[in-house]
Amino acid sequence: MQAKLNKLKARLKTIHDLHAISSLLFWDQATYMPPGGAQARGRQRALIEQMAHEHLTDKWIGQCLDSLLSYEQDLPYDSDDAALIRVTRRQYQKAIMVPAEFMARLSEHGATCYAAWIEARREKNFDLVRDHLEKNLDLSRELAGYYPGYEHIADPLIDIHDEGMTVARIRPLFADLRQRLVPLVEAICDNEPLENDFLHDHYPSRLQQEFCTRLARKLGYDTNRGRVDLTHHPFMIKFAQGDVRITTRIRENDLSEALFSSIHETGHALYEQNIDKQLEASPLDRGASGGVHESQSRLWENLIGRSREFWINHLPLLRELFPDQLSGVDLDRFCRGINHVERSLIRTDADEVTYNLHVMIRFELELELLEGALAIRDLPDAWNERYQSYLGVCPPDDSLGVLQDMHWYEGVIGGAFQSYTLGNLMAAQIYQTARQANPDLPTQIAQGHFEPLLHWLTQNIYRHGRKFLPEELIQRVTGRPLSIEPFMAYLQDKYGQWYRLP
Amino acid sequence: MQAKLNKLKARLKTIHDLHAISSLLFWDQATYMPPGGAQARGRQRALIEQMAHEHLTDKWIGQCLDSLLSYEQDLPYDSDDAALIRVTRRQYQKAIMVPAEFMARLSEHGATCYAAWIEARREKNFDLVRDHLEKNLDLSRELAGYYPGYEHIADPLIDIHDEGMTVARIRPLFADLRQRLVPLVEAICDNEPLENDFLHDHYPSRLQQEFCTRLARKLGYDTNRGRVDLTHHPFMIKFAQGDVRITTRIRENDLSEALFSSIHETGHALYEQNIDKQLEASPLDRGASGGVHESQSRLWENLIGRSREFWINHLPLLRELFPDQLSGVDLDRFCRGINHVERSLIRTDADEVTYNLHVMIRFELELELLEGALAIRDLPDAWNERYQSYLGVCPPDDSLGVLQDMHWYEGVIGGAFQSYTLGNLMAAQIYQTARQANPDLPTQIAQGHFEPLLHWLTQNIYRHGRKFLPEELIQRVTGRPLSIEPFMAYLQDKYGQWYRLP
Repeated sequence: MQAKLNKLKARLKTIHDLHAISSLLFWDQATYMPPGGAQARGRQRALIEQMAHEHLTDKWIGQCLDSLLSYEQDLPYDSDDAALIRVTRRQYQKAIMVPAEFMARLSEHGATCYAAWIEARREKNFDLVRDHLEKNLDLSRELAGYYPGYEHIADPLIDIHDEGMTVARIRPLFADLRQRLVPLVEAICDNEPLENDFLHDHYPSRLQQEFCTRLARKLGYDTNRGRVDLTHHPFMIKFAQGDVRITTRIRENDLSEALFSSIHETGHALYEQNIDKQLEASPLDRGASGGVHESQSRLWENLIGRSREFWINHLPLLRELFPDQLSGVDLDRFCRGINHVERSLIRTDADEVTYNLHVMIRFELELELLEGALAIRDLPDAWNERYQSYLGVCPPDDSLGVLQDMHWYEGVIGGAFQSYTLGNLMAAQIYQTARQANPDLPTQIAQGHFEPLLHWLTQNIYRHGRKFLPEELIQRVTGRPLSIEPFMAYLQDKYGQWYRLP
Repeated sequence: MQAKLNKLKARLKTIHDLHAISSLLFWDQATYMPPGGAQARGRQRALIEQMAHEHLTDKWIGQCLDSLLSYEQDLPYDSDDAALIRVTRRQYQKAIMVPAEFMARLSEHGATCYAAWIEARREKNFDLVRDHLEKNLDLSRELAGYYPGYEHIADPLIDIHDEGMTVARIRPLFADLRQRLVPLVEAICDNEPLENDFLHDHYPSRLQQEFCTRLARKLGYDTNRGRVDLTHHPFMIKFAQGDVRITTRIRENDLSEALFSSIHETGHALYEQNIDKQLEASPLDRGASGGVHESQSRLWENLIGRSREFWINHLPLLRELFPDQLSGVDLDRFCRGINHVERSLIRTDADEVTYNLHVMIRFELELELLEGALAIRDLPDAWNERYQSYLGVCPPDDSLGVLQDMHWYEGVIGGAFQSYTLGNLMAAQIYQTARQANPDLPTQIAQGHFEPLLHWLTQNIYRHGRKFLPEELIQRVTGRPLSIEPFMAYLQDKYGQWYRLP
């Protein structure tokens, strides 16, 4: 039995490595690849992904998993081997449901639609991508159809990113959240906005990059096992436990861009760098889900990185680099500036109060599209109406509206956006638990000591990798199911100090 | 028949792409990879190389090549399809001779020996790597043994890098060359050495990099289809016709390092960027051989880059960047400085007069090792004696002697070094022909116009990729077999202006 398991592990390591190689092909494309490399790179990525898919769907894997069933059942649920077999079985069963021929079609059309989206966004004209997006919707519905027995057509797509989550679970959570957020945003925006002009002074690129990398290291990011590069759309990516990279984006007239995107990606990287060495290069050697991953990037970015305690220690360091730009900016003014709230059009630029409304608009619209209740041709109007209703703003053109995110245009409509809001909710609930377990956390952070928090997160979350389903993990860590209350309490508490709130 | 050929081409494209992916894994390792990534990277490269080998040795390829034989024979020898089938057949037949099990053993031991070499070189102690090197020799002999029917045991190893070349062809060529070079070096070194102190002033890294990249572009390197990065050991690498990268190395106290290594790698890159588009992603989509490739890097580096004509146009540009360092350095002094000749210990730092003696020492020693005439334990002494005899210098320790090059320690002893000298000989013979075809070349170069030379090289060499064997190509381009005369005439002519020569 042990020999069989070892053989399975060797096969899974090959699959892991193929995904890692595909990731390097992507990283290079997003950082250093010259324009002339694009065509061959697309072909090379598709080749490796197809090989990984063939390896995972090999009948031998299914037979091996069958023969390991009784071995698995004799092990404790949370043992490494039981989790490995369990998670591999779920991945295998999902992978064999979808014909390779469909995956090729999906990926090919995704590339076509993506190219049309780039053009449509530049021309600010949704019509240029509409037909392609219709086909994406057809393909998304076809993809869901390969997983019979779902309750809602979006469930199989959500399951790809947030395993075990369903529309039935998420919809009421989001509905409650929206009912609480809309009036909160209104109340905040009735106040005078917090001043943040100083963030838009001139901050030279090189100094920003230096500060961000130093900061990432201070939070615990190991640059012997990672590095920081520049890109258009920041991301974290992993090739091995010893090679977890982040990218960032710098705007010389906006200090907050590089600062918070760096902390955000550092959060993702801390998760991946601190998975148990025993799980290395296995299907468990990655974060538990899209939502749980986002909870860690947002925890570090917002709950830590936008906190007063954090800047007690770091503002003096930042001021050493930018003495002119930050002269006259004391701790209070700085904290108000980086927590400026406003009704806005662009999700990725949104503050943490309005952010989830952006996400919910997308989640609601994609459900309606998948259900057939909304047609692609009516999507831009529906988008604009929803923005007016939830956020009180209306995009002047589609590039600032329905064309702003690449997600739907890459291939699959549905399944991805909910992770962002699940992550924000989880972050608040997890951090609340961490503070209860260690009431000194804020003091430690004010002193620039992040090891205790990192240690707690590693022990409770990071080291487990993908062993547990997201809801299982939240229950284990916080002792409760996922709820919106910790997040709402966090917002109420934090923004109550600056604004008159209901 | 056409359908079969198209299917073969599709399979060969996959093999090409796997090699390209392996190359990206290497490029990243040599440029940006953090130290923690090394272990997984070794595993991932081995995985891809193994997959490429499996694809190439698939029986279907052999059957397909058999069934295309009559089609090939009806085509002209130099047609693209005939060349593709011919070259693929040679590659297939070589690949199936060697058991996959052996390749795995060779690659595994190569990694072990390489690591021991790093340590031995640091400790300046050959004994630390001696046993591993003995095993490399055994494996190299075993490798040669898989290709029965050779005349000399090194022939199959040479054939890997310089197809069609043999010891019987190279040995007399090199013997003649040595007999002419040793007295030439002696004569030159009897003179006062050319002064080159100004090259060792302080040249800031960033400005050097800027100049080198600008220069590469001016020579015709297309940075929309390539880029320049920094590394320890400069190299050119290709992922696709649209993505041919070079790396360089900068020393702030030695201007010639970055300058000439950049031009050298640009030469390699010009070759790869100008292969016929029709050959893209096929086995023909690369230079003809190690030697022919080196002929192009050395042609651009030495025959162009160290010529007086070249610096007529470029010295003023260089002086704009480094006005203090180059004040008082006129064209003549600059040209003498970059053509400084001296007896030296390190091959990669050697000038173009002594360089081939370094290469010949290695070539002779590796033949003796493979023949069994020299034992590994006697190698350091043999190395030192040969340096004393050919170059009149003796390494003070092994790190400056037998441990200086990685080649033997990576896995295979034999087959690689001759390319460097073949390249130098070819470069002179090719450039002599180019000047006969276009007597205006020196004037064009003095005016900073490289298009005519690049066009001639593309038409005669680059576009053909790997269609022809090295000797065939030299015969086609120059109308003669490879000879040492053009190279000797070039040295005599160039160095005769500065030194009293026999």
